[in-house]
Amino acid sequence: MRYSKLFGKTVRSAPAGFKLVSHRLLHQAGLVRESVAGRYYFLPLGIRVRDKVMKIIEEEMDKAGAQKMITPVLHPLELWEETHRTDSTGFELMQVKDRRGAKFALGGTAEEMLVELVRRFKLSYKDLPFNVYQFSSKFRDELRARGGLLRTREFVMKDAYSFHADEKDFEREYELMAKTYKRIFERMGLKTKRVAADNGYIGGDYCHELVMESDIGESKFFEAGDYCAHEEVAMFKRDKKKFDDKQKAMKEVEAKRGPTMEAGVKLHKLPLWQQIKDLMMVDGKGKFVLGVIRGDLMINEVKLANVAKMTNLRQATEEEIIKLGSYPGFISPIGLNKKVKVIVDISVKEMVNAYTGANKKHRDLLNVNYGRDFKADVEGDIAMVQAGYMAENGKKLVEGRGIEVGNIFQLGYYYTDLMKGASFTDKQGKQKKYYMGCYGIGLGRTMAAVVEKYNDKQGIIWPESIAPYQVTLVSLEGVEAKAKQVYEALVKAGIEVLWDDRQVSAGVKFSDADLIGIPVRLVVSSKTKDKIEWKRRESQKTELISLEEVLKRCQK
Amino acid sequence: MRYSKLFGKTVRSAPAGFKLVSHRLLHQAGLVRESVAGRYYFLPLGIRVRDKVMKIIEEEMDKAGAQKMITPVLHPLELWEETHRTDSTGFELMQVKDRRGAKFALGGTAEEMLVELVRRFKLSYKDLPFNVYQFSSKFRDELRARGGLLRTREFVMKDAYSFHADEKDFEREYELMAKTYKRIFERMGLKTKRVAADNGYIGGDYCHELVMESDIGESKFFEAGDYCAHEEVAMFKRDKKKFDDKQKAMKEVEAKRGPTMEAGVKLHKLPLWQQIKDLMMVDGKGKFVLGVIRGDLMINEVKLANVAKMTNLRQATEEEIIKLGSYPGFISPIGLNKKVKVIVDISVKEMVNAYTGANKKHRDLLNVNYGRDFKADVEGDIAMVQAGYMAENGKKLVEGRGIEVGNIFQLGYYYTDLMKGASFTDKQGKQKKYYMGCYGIGLGRTMAAVVEKYNDKQGIIWPESIAPYQVTLVSLEGVEAKAKQVYEALVKAGIEVLWDDRQVSAGVKFSDADLIGIPVRLVVSSKTKDKIEWKRRESQKTELISLEEVLKRCQK
Repeated sequence: MRYSKLFGKTVRSAPAGFKLVSHRLLHQAGLVRESVAGRYYFLPLGIRVRDKVMKIIEEEMDKAGAQKMITPVLHPLELWEETHRTDSTGFELMQVKDRRGAKFALGGTAEEMLVELVRRFKLSYKDLPFNVYQFSSKFRDELRARGGLLRTREFVMKDAYSFHADEKDFEREYELMAKTYKRIFERMGLKTKRVAADNGYIGGDYCHELVMESDIGESKFFEAGDYCAHEEVAMFKRDKKKFDDKQKAMKEVEAKRGPTMEAGVKLHKLPLWQQIKDLMMVDGKGKFVLGVIRGDLMINEVKLANVAKMTNLRQATEEEIIKLGSYPGFISPIGLNKKVKVIVDISVKEMVNAYTGANKKHRDLLNVNYGRDFKADVEGDIAMVQAGYMAENGKKLVEGRGIEVGNIFQLGYYYTDLMKGASFTDKQGKQKKYYMGCYGIGLGRTMAAVVEKYNDKQGIIWPESIAPYQVTLVSLEGVEAKAKQVYEALVKAGIEVLWDDRQVSAGVKFSDADLIGIPVRLVVSSKTKDKIEWKRRESQKTELISLEEVLKRCQK
Repeated sequence: MRYSKLFGKTVRSAPAGFKLVSHRLLHQAGLVRESVAGRYYFLPLGIRVRDKVMKIIEEEMDKAGAQKMITPVLHPLELWEETHRTDSTGFELMQVKDRRGAKFALGGTAEEMLVELVRRFKLSYKDLPFNVYQFSSKFRDELRARGGLLRTREFVMKDAYSFHADEKDFEREYELMAKTYKRIFERMGLKTKRVAADNGYIGGDYCHELVMESDIGESKFFEAGDYCAHEEVAMFKRDKKKFDDKQKAMKEVEAKRGPTMEAGVKLHKLPLWQQIKDLMMVDGKGKFVLGVIRGDLMINEVKLANVAKMTNLRQATEEEIIKLGSYPGFISPIGLNKKVKVIVDISVKEMVNAYTGANKKHRDLLNVNYGRDFKADVEGDIAMVQAGYMAENGKKLVEGRGIEVGNIFQLGYYYTDLMKGASFTDKQGKQKKYYMGCYGIGLGRTMAAVVEKYNDKQGIIWPESIAPYQVTLVSLEGVEAKAKQVYEALVKAGIEVLWDDRQVSAGVKFSDADLIGIPVRLVVSSKTKDKIEWKRRESQKTELISLEEVLKRCQK
């Protein structure tokens, strides 16, 4: 390709507000352009990279025995209604009607579409297992589109769905996909961690993110030895406090204090960890939930929502708390309005003679004991993890941060329970529901993650496997004929080459080459005589070598 | 691939109502499944064919110097409003709103998206010409979705857009694209005709369809020597009638007759071709247009709409005609309500002493002469062509029918006139508008066209270039070990093979192989001993050859 003919050239600067390196460099190097916020054009250089990402994914998925196919972009809405995902996905789901009034979802994932397809075939155990995948446009009506390709409102995803006779066979596939994903990312130069995560609106019981460590990532996780989990699901051992006292009789006392935890400590002269902390929240339908935890810990709202099985939680207002018959700063699970669901963190179970509010202004309860004085609707883990806490394996948790480039989900019977007829004939001739999993990789986000990892002040430094071209040929003035010869020899040898054939200064050409970041730069000038200058993008070292040597190195 | 593991197997019959061969066979052979009417899943066998179609298109487009890229699926609606295509596309355009109220079109083509992108770059004549293409999902809210992949509501299209400094450079590209398309279809075994056609809501002055002849096609065209045009634009010489009389004085006479042309002939005892035929129509906004033509010809409503520059035409009702001050069966351009636009076919210009109604019940006008007694708002060609008419080149027109597999459009300044700032800097430093063209191929429709052409009673007969696999290996009972050896040898040699490894009868395997239509069938059985049976799908001849010979033939 001659650079002079290339559509979508480099620009010296990016618009203000492009904070992320990948956002800025993918724009400046001429790989992408934003249409409107969160929706991108991929220019010729960008699509070349994306195609190579696709090819790597395809090769590895095929090697793992998965089969490519594709579903329509528009999903009949009744399928999403069958699984109630029209509710749980909330505003993220875009919908459209055709002129006959049929409704469609612009899907963010395609579980329903696949289950619908599969249940139409009358399959038997002999047809199982199978794993089908597609590269398809996905839509998420995000409130905020993050900078560049990291979180967009429309993107191409490789999404795969596997169907199994039982859990055991699924577990084999899940491990195979985890390994396959790891290899896919390794081939693009990305080391990933497998991080246990929250299933969210995808459903199912567990899932893992494949995370590339990065300071700008949105995935916060905690790690200790073999253990690695997203902050929303990470577990830790509650440290032992001095809870060996005998239970005393509970008593209500006057408590002229402010609403904070600290005010309670000061007034009662008891440690923070002996105080009970309460957090009142409301869900999308107006139902209340109280999170209860040991005073020195904090509540993670995602964990609370998951344990409570409630969605769209927000903190209750002071008015709402008073209306419930309690009082802000003096909330207590004891004597609370019965319509509030009470979720108790496991840390509270070991507390003895704790203190808390009394649901009345300036009244506290002392010597409160869980089990004796109050009970939970649900006990569980709703605590926020912090670096330094102890993992279940006895090792200290270290905080990490990264970009989620892929994810794998156990779905189990989540969809096949909700969608009628999603079953196969087993060996005994009986109908049995499919056990499922699903697996996703966002192509654009993967590209952005690579750029976040591989860049310097001058521009991108593409790994060979997904570089838009293998080599860039820079020809300086006065050697056009020689350059053309070299270019044609490279093309003839099947080497992907971008030839900067413009009549501009060497400086401009060199900085554009650095910005675009093709792994090898060849220079032909009057100084190189019958040789060619070879330089790798990441190195400062230049070498003068023959055309034959260039071809040899490129064809390796 | 082992057939036992393949997702999406053959079925013995298709649902009732699958009238087209391609609809039935693509379903039965397990290549596609309909989601809801006009929206398709491509199963693993189907996506393999589609990928090969894509690859051929990509190779030929790249060879022609075009560059692949991609636009977002959702087009900001304001771009479509800029070109008024929100009106002209009518109901076919699906629209969707996001949660912030931003509106988007689910595009049927992407001219606006490309012009929007290109105008953001400040390009100069040095950057021209260029031709960018994409494989992207297209949406058309068709009232009726035709059987199978021939006319769907959602499909993947290769759409290309070229930008030029002037018309002359565009014309070069247009010819290049016509040639490229011809070669693309030839590589898939399709001979295509280049048929002049109507631009419709795409805009521009002229376009051509690439049509594969087929009786089930929706494209009706007329051909005479070099000339070939769709019925909506085909031109013909109006045959000479005896129009050498002197013009007589026009007179109004009583005419107690019915509303038909024949009634006029009978009453006045004058030939049909001396009568003036009038057709009153109304557009989407309630504006009237009268088509006027020689009595022995018929009006083509698409031509009428194009000459009148009006859209969504329908015939006027009797009430509407009376309200206009005329009378059904006695309409005449003479003395007609001024708000009616009068379009006169060129055939009327040579008529002498014609007769027609008088806009009153039972009153006719005799000796009517165009130019003297009435004038057109626009003169043009609004006549329906028929087989046997004479083309402008003097040869007789023959009627043809086929499937439109591709199309190429001159757009000229249609979009760059309507969209502000769509200009480049010319050699003199002045801003000049881009001259454009666009070019499309529907992938699914192309697949269906191939199946329509290549099939027999037993199933599909894929051309090698786009067959889902190169060979199918059928192994009969008792030779599993040998079959596995052959399979592995083929895989190792890089040959795409589908191995029917099921434990079913030879008959079932053979008929499935014929249904799927892979070009070469290999059989390994106890009878073939150390040889392999080789049979091409389209032939009855079987040969016993060695594995080495099989490999040799496949690797050619």
